[in-house]
Amino acid sequence: MTGGRFIVLEGGEGAGKTGTIAFLAAELRARGRDVVTTREPGGTPEGAALRRLLLAGEGFDWTPEAELLLMTADRAQHVARVVRPALAAGRIVISDRYAGSTLAYQGAGRGLDRELILDLHRRALNDLWPDLTLVLDVPPEIGLRRSLARLGSEGVDEGRFEGLDLDFHRRVRQSFLDLAAAAGPGARVIDATATPETVKAEALAAVLGVLG
Amino acid sequence: MTGGRFIVLEGGEGAGKTGTIAFLAAELRARGRDVVTTREPGGTPEGAALRRLLLAGEGFDWTPEAELLLMTADRAQHVARVVRPALAAGRIVISDRYAGSTLAYQGAGRGLDRELILDLHRRALNDLWPDLTLVLDVPPEIGLRRSLARLGSEGVDEGRFEGLDLDFHRRVRQSFLDLAAAAGPGARVIDATATPETVKAEALAAVLGVLG
Repeated sequence: MTGGRFIVLEGGEGAGKTGTIAFLAAELRARGRDVVTTREPGGTPEGAALRRLLLAGEGFDWTPEAELLLMTADRAQHVARVVRPALAAGRIVISDRYAGSTLAYQGAGRGLDRELILDLHRRALNDLWPDLTLVLDVPPEIGLRRSLARLGSEGVDEGRFEGLDLDFHRRVRQSFLDLAAAAGPGARVIDATATPETVKAEALAAVLGVLG
Repeated sequence: MTGGRFIVLEGGEGAGKTGTIAFLAAELRARGRDVVTTREPGGTPEGAALRRLLLAGEGFDWTPEAELLLMTADRAQHVARVVRPALAAGRIVISDRYAGSTLAYQGAGRGLDRELILDLHRRALNDLWPDLTLVLDVPPEIGLRRSLARLGSEGVDEGRFEGLDLDFHRRVRQSFLDLAAAAGPGARVIDATATPETVKAEALAAVLGVLG
């Protein structure tokens, strides 16, 4: 056993994962810890190219099954090339999304069988799970508005907001909450409607708790 | 049951699949049949983009597991968007490669567990298998030289040939032969060192045999 720890932030759009991860990395480094920050999809050069195929909106229309396989391919590459080597070297890995996002988006969101997702995870990833998952919880009505506001300087385009599938994002949110409930002490739900300072402080306390 | 038939050509590099497929399609169309020719990877717009990530040699170095998942994603997309709709419409689908190539390249070639590949196929593709598989069999020493000669007008660069992993391609060839043996009447091995005319004639006879 090395001192490596695998910490994952999960949550819907606009939950504040990116800013929280930057804060956690800076705080841990200030405490002399060796930290790697990474993300899914796209944590490797190969995955970054794959991410463009999945998210760039080039008019592609992947089936749910193909999307699941691509996300799992990205994860297999990421775990083999980034996560496992860093953990083996005793580093702290903080990832923006991991398998919980696949259960949420491809499972609860797009309706794929949860057992299929978990079985793929076991077979292609040797069942590697985080030491700690932080779920930044935000109602989709709030998170999506934040996310859209960040994209446009003129505030939220109400027409674009209405076009979003809120039911989809509600299922995604519930899946993250279920994941946290099932993980017990391996997960912490943080209310991401609180001030950024409060969210960051809670996240840091949880992370320091597993570093020992 | 419709009149649709799913015919797949498998084989190593330089076996002559492309020319044989063009011949089969032309012959069947001349007989009034409705034929779709397609290929893997890359039989859909999404898959074509994925094919570039897999084969374009952009310096990417996919793990065997990631490569398997990407090939299966391409196949899931291809089956859902091209193969099944065409079969449901009673058309004859002729595909350049299918699951046999994954068993050969990612399984026998790269050493992934055959059961993992078959299980993925069952789960992501509902276990769709061809009505007929034609294995164009050629020793890798011959096929690879043909393939290299096609790339360069000056004949084969011996240095480049020596750089190829012949053992890898021998395992790939054996896997195709094993697949055909296991498939019984659902497969036919054709000696692709014969003249193109002989190969095409044998292929056409086999295909007409399953069309009834």
